[in-house]
Amino acid sequence: MTKGPINLAPSELAYVPFVSVDNMMRMVRAVGVETVMRGIADYIEEDFLRWESFDKIPRIPAHAPQGVIELMPTSDGKTFGFKYVNGHPGNTREGKQTVTGFGVLSDLTTGYPLLLTEMTILTALRTAANSALAAKYLAPKGSTTMAVIGNGAQSDFQCLAFKDQLGITEIRAYDVEPEASLRLARNLAGSGINVTICKTPEDAIEGAQIITTATADKKLATILTDNMVGSGVHINAVGGDCPGKTELHKDILLRSDIFVEFPEQTRIEGECQQLAEDHPVTELWQVYAGKAAGRTSEGQITLFDSVGFAIEDFAALRYIHDILPSTGHFEKLDLLADPDDPRDLYGMLLRSGANDDNQAA
Amino acid sequence: MTKGPINLAPSELAYVPFVSVDNMMRMVRAVGVETVMRGIADYIEEDFLRWESFDKIPRIPAHAPQGVIELMPTSDGKTFGFKYVNGHPGNTREGKQTVTGFGVLSDLTTGYPLLLTEMTILTALRTAANSALAAKYLAPKGSTTMAVIGNGAQSDFQCLAFKDQLGITEIRAYDVEPEASLRLARNLAGSGINVTICKTPEDAIEGAQIITTATADKKLATILTDNMVGSGVHINAVGGDCPGKTELHKDILLRSDIFVEFPEQTRIEGECQQLAEDHPVTELWQVYAGKAAGRTSEGQITLFDSVGFAIEDFAALRYIHDILPSTGHFEKLDLLADPDDPRDLYGMLLRSGANDDNQAA
Repeated sequence: MTKGPINLAPSELAYVPFVSVDNMMRMVRAVGVETVMRGIADYIEEDFLRWESFDKIPRIPAHAPQGVIELMPTSDGKTFGFKYVNGHPGNTREGKQTVTGFGVLSDLTTGYPLLLTEMTILTALRTAANSALAAKYLAPKGSTTMAVIGNGAQSDFQCLAFKDQLGITEIRAYDVEPEASLRLARNLAGSGINVTICKTPEDAIEGAQIITTATADKKLATILTDNMVGSGVHINAVGGDCPGKTELHKDILLRSDIFVEFPEQTRIEGECQQLAEDHPVTELWQVYAGKAAGRTSEGQITLFDSVGFAIEDFAALRYIHDILPSTGHFEKLDLLADPDDPRDLYGMLLRSGANDDNQAA
Repeated sequence: MTKGPINLAPSELAYVPFVSVDNMMRMVRAVGVETVMRGIADYIEEDFLRWESFDKIPRIPAHAPQGVIELMPTSDGKTFGFKYVNGHPGNTREGKQTVTGFGVLSDLTTGYPLLLTEMTILTALRTAANSALAAKYLAPKGSTTMAVIGNGAQSDFQCLAFKDQLGITEIRAYDVEPEASLRLARNLAGSGINVTICKTPEDAIEGAQIITTATADKKLATILTDNMVGSGVHINAVGGDCPGKTELHKDILLRSDIFVEFPEQTRIEGECQQLAEDHPVTELWQVYAGKAAGRTSEGQITLFDSVGFAIEDFAALRYIHDILPSTGHFEKLDLLADPDDPRDLYGMLLRSGANDDNQAA
C-alpha cells in the first residue's frame, strides 16, 4: 500500500465503453452504413454457424396497458449480451419513439461489461443486415429488383444492405402514405439505387425478384394476397414481428418454403402464427451450415419470416465492440465500483470525501 | 417542419440520467450514508406493503465455469426496474471485483429509462437498509448491542444502518482475519458507535441482542453453532445468499422463527436450503402489513434469512431517482435515438453527417 496521496481516479478496470446515439451515428458515417451492415451480417452468420453453443433464453417481458419492455439476453458461454427494448405504440402522441433500445455486451468469464451502447440505430442496422444475409442464401441468383412495401424507418437500411450485399439496383417502393415513399427516394438519392415510386402494391412487385414487406401497422393485415405473388420470388417479411401482427395472406405461406430464425419464437410472433404449430419450417442456421437446403429450384417461393432474435443483437454488439478501438467513437463510463480493497467499499466512500475536503482546502 | 438550421442536439427526451460510481459517492456523502439507508428502508417498506402489485420474476442467470451474470427484473405495472449483477469469486486474482452491478429504472407506460446507475455501492446500501428494516420488526425492543461476524465490505453499512434505525451503539466485531475487524473499527471511528474487536465468535455474541452474520466464504459453513445462540436474540443472516453457501448450523434454524423475503428464492439460496421444502417461514411483507406476527415473545429467536430480492433493488432505484433533482449528482447520457421523424431514422444519420460537413467547412 502506498502512503502517498491517495489515487482517487477510477482505475481503467472501472470504465465501460459507452456508445451514445451521437457516437453511433459518427461511427456508422465513418465506416459507411453499407460496410457496417456487411460486417454485422458476417458476424451474424458466424454466430448462426455456432448456433448450438448459445443459450437461447426466451425474451423476458414486463407489460403495461401502454406497451411492453423486454430484456433479450443470450450467451455463448464466454460472452454475454442483452438488449433492452420497448414497444409503446402510443408514444408518438407525446413526441417519443415507439421503440427504443440499448444493449450490453459482457465478458462472462469475469462478469464485467465490455460495452454499453444505444441500440435503436443498431437494431435497424442488424435487422437489414440479417435480411440481406438470409437473402444471399434464398433469393434468386442475379436478383436486381426489389419491391419494398412499407417505406418507414427500416426501409432505407433494407435497400442499402440489399444493394451492397446482393447487387440490387432497382427499388420499387410502395407505402399507403406516398410521402413515406418520397422520403425514402430522397434519402437514397446518390446511393446508386434507382427508386421507382409505385401507386399500388401490385405495381411495386412488377418484375421484382425479391419482395420486402416492412409495414408498421400492428394488426393482422394482408399486404400481399396470394394472386400477387408469382413463382420464383424471395419474400423478405420483416414487418410481422409480434403476436397479432402479420402482413401476408395465409395462402402465400402455404405455397412457400418458410425459413425462420428460431422456430419457437417465430411460431408465436411471425407470419407463422397463422399456420399449424407443426407446419414445416427450416432454421436458417442449418441453411448457413449446409445442413438444410436453401433455394433448390427456380420456381420455388422462399419466405424469410423475420422476427428478430437475440443472437442477432449479440452479433451486432460483438461487431461494434470489435471496431471500437479503430473508430474511437465512444466515451468511458464510470459504471463499476473499483475500490483498492474490495473488502473496503465504505472506506472508498470515506476516502473520496477526504479528497473533496482537500480540494476545498 | 422548420426550414432554418437543423437542430442536431439531442432533445431532452433522448437523455437518460446516469449516476456513476463517483456521483453515487458524492450523493451519499452529501445526503449522509445513514440518511440514505433510512430513505431506502422506507422505500423498501413502502414497496413490500404493496407486495402483490409486483411481478416477481425469477433471476435470469447466464453461467460460465468462472461465475454467473444475473438479470433481476421486476415491475409494479407502472415502473420497471432491473439489476445486472455478476458473481465471479476468482476475479480478485486479477484485481477485479467479485461482485459488481448496475441498474436501470424505467417508466413502463412509455418504455423510456428514467435512470441508469452503478449498483455496487447501492446494493451494499440497500442490503443494510433491508436488514435494519426487518430488525425494526423482529429485534428485541431496546437492543443496543450487535455482534457482527464477518467484517467485510457489507459490515460497515450494517453497523451504520443499525445505529441509525435501531439505536445500536455497541458493535462486537469478529472476523477470521483480525485485520478486517481493525479496518471496520477504523472506518467507524467517530460515527458514534463503540467497536469491540473480539477474538472468537463466542466472545462476539456475548451480551448481543442482535447477531449479524455477513461472512463471504462460498461454502456450507457453520459460523454459529447451536449452543452459541441464547434465547431472545434476533439473527440477521446476510452472508448465506446462494446455493451451497450457508452460515448457520441447521439446529439454530429449527429453534428459530424464520422470516424471509420471497420463499421461492430463499429456499434455494438462503439458510433455508438446509431445511425441508415445506418448513414454515413467514414472509416479511406480511409482517410489515400486519398480516403476520413478527416478534411475539421475549424468549423467541427470530431469524431474518436474507438473500436479496429484486423489489429491494427496485426500491433503491426509486429512492435514488427521487433524490436526483435535489442532489444534482448525475450526468445525462445520450442513450435513446430521438429522430424528429420517427419514420426517418436513416435521415437522422444523413443529417448528422451534413452537420459534420458544416463544421468542417
